[in-house]
This record gives sequence, structure tokens and C-alpha cells, in this order.
Amino acid sequence: MPAEHPPTGNGPLPAALCVLGMGLIGGSLMRAAAPHLPVFGWSRGEDTRQAAADDGFEVPDTVEHALRRAVAVDALVVLAAPVTAFRPLLRSIGELAPMVRLTDVAGVKAPVAELVAELVPRARYIGSHPMTGTEHSGWSAGSAELFDDRVWVTTLQDDSRIEDWAPVAGLALAVGSRVVPAEPEAHDDAAARVSHLPHLLALALAQVGQAGGALALSLAAGSFADGTRVAGTRPELIRAMCESNADRLVQVLDETLAQLGVARASLASSGSLAKITAGGHQARLALDGRLEGLEPVRLAGDDLVEQLLAVGAGGGHVTGIEQGPDGLAVHTLYPAGD
Amino acid sequence: MPAEHPPTGNGPLPAALCVLGMGLIGGSLMRAAAPHLPVFGWSRGEDTRQAAADDGFEVPDTVEHALRRAVAVDALVVLAAPVTAFRPLLRSIGELAPMVRLTDVAGVKAPVAELVAELVPRARYIGSHPMTGTEHSGWSAGSAELFDDRVWVTTLQDDSRIEDWAPVAGLALAVGSRVVPAEPEAHDDAAARVSHLPHLLALALAQVGQAGGALALSLAAGSFADGTRVAGTRPELIRAMCESNADRLVQVLDETLAQLGVARASLASSGSLAKITAGGHQARLALDGRLEGLEPVRLAGDDLVEQLLAVGAGGGHVTGIEQGPDGLAVHTLYPAGD
Repeated sequence: MPAEHPPTGNGPLPAALCVLGMGLIGGSLMRAAAPHLPVFGWSRGEDTRQAAADDGFEVPDTVEHALRRAVAVDALVVLAAPVTAFRPLLRSIGELAPMVRLTDVAGVKAPVAELVAELVPRARYIGSHPMTGTEHSGWSAGSAELFDDRVWVTTLQDDSRIEDWAPVAGLALAVGSRVVPAEPEAHDDAAARVSHLPHLLALALAQVGQAGGALALSLAAGSFADGTRVAGTRPELIRAMCESNADRLVQVLDETLAQLGVARASLASSGSLAKITAGGHQARLALDGRLEGLEPVRLAGDDLVEQLLAVGAGGGHVTGIEQGPDGLAVHTLYPAGD
Repeated sequence: MPAEHPPTGNGPLPAALCVLGMGLIGGSLMRAAAPHLPVFGWSRGEDTRQAAADDGFEVPDTVEHALRRAVAVDALVVLAAPVTAFRPLLRSIGELAPMVRLTDVAGVKAPVAELVAELVPRARYIGSHPMTGTEHSGWSAGSAELFDDRVWVTTLQDDSRIEDWAPVAGLALAVGSRVVPAEPEAHDDAAARVSHLPHLLALALAQVGQAGGALALSLAAGSFADGTRVAGTRPELIRAMCESNADRLVQVLDETLAQLGVARASLASSGSLAKITAGGHQARLALDGRLEGLEPVRLAGDDLVEQLLAVGAGGGHVTGIEQGPDGLAVHTLYPAGD
């Protein structure tokens, strides 16, 4: 259907998309991808399948039918179910589509990569983490704009093939995301720091505030509201996210406890918070400035995987992919050196 | 000047206002109060005095002149300078205006109450903490709307006189605030929990995020941005605020470290964050619901100080004060019982 599905100009796309799990992320991805390539999806829930079909999407009635169709059209299979459902899904893929193009949208990447290596070792797998969401869930909460201007992490390992990565990254670009390449372990460490830890601190802060009674809550203003906002996320979602990255989160939590312990000791002994205040303020400024001074850098050559990982580790991201006469070329934005 | 300064209908007002320190809070208070009562102010900085005079405010050229005038017109003196400047100011007040009506707008209340008791024991003192601000400072940053719909804590102790409290609370009501009565120590405990602790956690979070390098910062989204926002406050302001409440903050920090330590142990041993997630989520919902279900309650009688402290401790606030035939009556909003 080339006329119906024009290329985006950003990069190669998979021939089609097979989304397994049509909740907020999966359902949004189907809506966002539909203008660019053929899309079909499956969900365990009959109501969800019916709702997606009612909205005009192609919905095979079993995961087996979906996977057979994926093999037939060389679709990219997207695992968009909860991580706890990955094992049975990957078993089905191992039986019916062992060499399929495969990605997932889980918030933790190293454990998923291990699971894929164990159950579908020959799949053309590249992990994804589109860093987006809302407080709602389910097919009806989906939106084609969910990925717009968000980070979409694509994972790469030593043995990853750039030909497998390109259509996954191309899909992410097509739906409007900034593509950040990262090793699975590096992703999980970063996610523990900037996503899972903030949830834990918000939960603790909310409780310490409440322990001050009604007076404390009635005195709460902006700093407390900001600091506790994500404690309003549904508890089961926070748990699923944080507990799936337990090992990294424990280490990052230890760093945090050490920092707060040093500040506590300084405050109690000398009354000073000079160190944590200076360091924390500077760190916040670094966050505000992270998208400033990015410059275009074009990557090409035999070691693209290595180059892409360096771009991600350095704070850069991918903006386009093109097929040149000598292979793929990748356009990136990368922080300018001093 | 009754025609120029009509009563607000919310409560009694002092005869005039003498603001010492015309920075963000002091300067905003002068602007907000000016439609309701005569206002004059003094600041240590000559440029600030000139700027206020240029804006049409009466500005005595020395603190002595300001205090003599305050005595002459029975003005309420407002200490709006940094807490570190309170001691010399209070010495001047002790010499020139020992029985003056007095309040202050510092973010910590028990230490100021002690200082006032030491240096101006006969002053008609009621502490204030208008819980407002912006990231800017100085006279030019001031705004008459700064107190609108904000909490203004008024402190009461066993020996506080309701006649001293009423014009301070009346002023707070006139500039649009919700008046919350509290004991100085209870205020400082609450402020440590809902204002000072959020700053410390934001500073720690910002640094642990930055320790993840450029990749972590480029993956940071809403939860990290929210959780670190107040780390962007000027470091000297954070230090002045938190260090002035060091004793309470150390205790509250210990509660936080204990909570996070329990969560860390649970995550490391059983992989579960069930407890902190359930408790923190419920606490955040309590914050969201704190202004729901308030009902009007009218207070009167000889034990108004005690009644007002109960209203504040219970999550209520004052909405109006009237002089009845049998003394003051105070209108409040108080959380309805179940």
C-alpha cells in the first residue's frame, strides 16, 4: 500500500506493525503509526479487541493468527503487554515466529533482553522504551500524539545489527520521538535515577508531610505539591515500574541515602547545608540546559552501533536515518564540545 | 483617612503599617495593604528606599524615624528583613518602641518568638508567615497580588492576647490570604515537612540524576522535572530557609531516612515496594482533598486563643473577624467531621 503509507523522510520503516497488547502505549502506537504503515494488533481482552476493531483497526482474534500474519508480511512485532505477560508471549513467538522483527515498550530493558535471548534467541530484537504516558490506561485512553516530542530509547548491544535497529528507530521517528540509543543496562541505571527514584522520594515525602497532621497539609504549597505529584500515580503502576528494576533502584537509593545522610550530619553538627545546596542547584541547572547547544552530527561506517551508543551516552539523539550508496547514514544532534 | 482606607469587611485592621525591609515580601505587603490602611516603610538600602518613594510610598530615611512614627500612630511594625538582621532591628525597637504592635514574616517562628521575648518582651507580638514568594527578590519584584489565596500563618502562644492577634489576622485577610493559627513550634514542624524537606529531597534527587551522566539527563521527563524543580531556587535562599529551622529539619529528615531505609530493605530482600507505595499514594490523596468538605464554624468566648489553635491544628482557617457586643467573634472554615 505505498500510496496510502508514504515514507516519513525520517528513516526506514518496517513493512508492517503487529502490536501485542493494546493498552495506553500499544493503542497509542497503533494510532500514531497508522498513517505511515500497515498496522494490526491483538489484545488478551475481548472488549479491547472489539473497541480497536470498532475504531477501524485490523484485529486478529488470536495471538497465533497475529503472529502468523506478522511472519507473512515481515511485520515488526511490538510487545506492549505488561512485562509480567512477556514470558508466555515470547514462548508463542518462539514457536510461531522465531526470527521475527521484535521490539517491546517495557520500562526496564536488561531483564527483557535476557528473556528474549533465552526464549527467542534468533529474533531480530531491538528493545524500546518510549518515555511517555498519562495517568490513564486502556485502549480508550490512547492518543496518536502520545509520542510527540518524547524520548524513545532504543537499546543496542555488542551483537545488535544495525539493519534490525533502523526500522525500529524509523518507527519512533515517524511517530515524532527523539531516538536515544543506549545499552540496556545503561538505560536501566538512568531510568532508576530519573524515573523510579523520583517516585520513591515522592511517596516518602507525601507520608512525612501527612505525619505532620492536618496543619502540615494545610500549610503545603508549591514545593510539596511538586515533590509529591507522582505519588498520585496508581500504586500498581508505580510498583510494576520500580520493582521490575529493583537491583538498579536499590543501588541508586543507596546513593541517595548517602547524600541525605551527609547533609543530615552537616546540618546537625555545623548547621550548614552548603554542600548539598550548591551541588543540587548546579545539577538542576544542568537539567535545564541539556537540550541547549546541540549540533548536527552525521554518522556512517561499519561501527555504527558503537557510534550510536556514544551519541546516546553523551546526551545526543537520532533525528533521521537514510540509506546511502555505502550503507546507512544516521543524522544526530549531539552536545557541542566546549 | 477613613474615606481613602475603607474597611475590608473581613476584620479589624491596625491603624497603620510600618514595614521594615522592603524586599519581595515587605514590598508586596506595602502594595497589597495600601488600599486598606496608611502604609510606610524603611529599608537598609538607599536604592530600595528611593525606589519605594518613587512609587509613591512614604519612606522615612532612618529606622529611628520609622519607629517613632509607628509609636505615634500605633502602627503595626512588620519585620520583613532577613532573619539575620532581626537582632539589631529588635534592639532598636526595644529602645524606641518597646510596646509597639509587632509581627514578622520569617519562615521560622519559634526562634523569632524567643528573640522577641528576649529583646522586646513587652511588644504586642504575633508572629506571621505568609507562605508565598516567587523566584525573584527585591522591591521591584513585589506585587499586590502576592498574598492572594495563599496561607498566612499567625502564631499564638498561651500568653498571646486576642486583641493583638486580631489586627494581624485582619491585615492578612485584607490582602487575600487564608489565615491559619498555629503555635510557633507546630508551624516550624509543619514547615520542615512540607517546605524545607521538599527542597532537600529535590537537591539530592538532582545530584543522583546528574551522577547518571548525560544519558540520564536526556531521559529525564516529568517526574524528574517535578521532583527537582525547587532545586532551581537560589542556593542562598534555600540555605537561609532550611538552616534557620535546622533542629526540626534534622528530625524530619531522620523520619524520611527511616522510611526510605525500610523501603530499600523491602525492595532488596523481597522485591516489594507495597508498603511505601500504598502509604505514599494515600497521603498524596489526603493532600488533594485537604480543602474539600470545609464547613463554616463561628468561634467566640474567653478561650478564643485555644479555639483558634484547635482550628489550625485541625486543618481549618480563619475567614473573618467581627467585633460583636460580647467581644470578638471569629469566622472559620473547618473540616467537617465524618
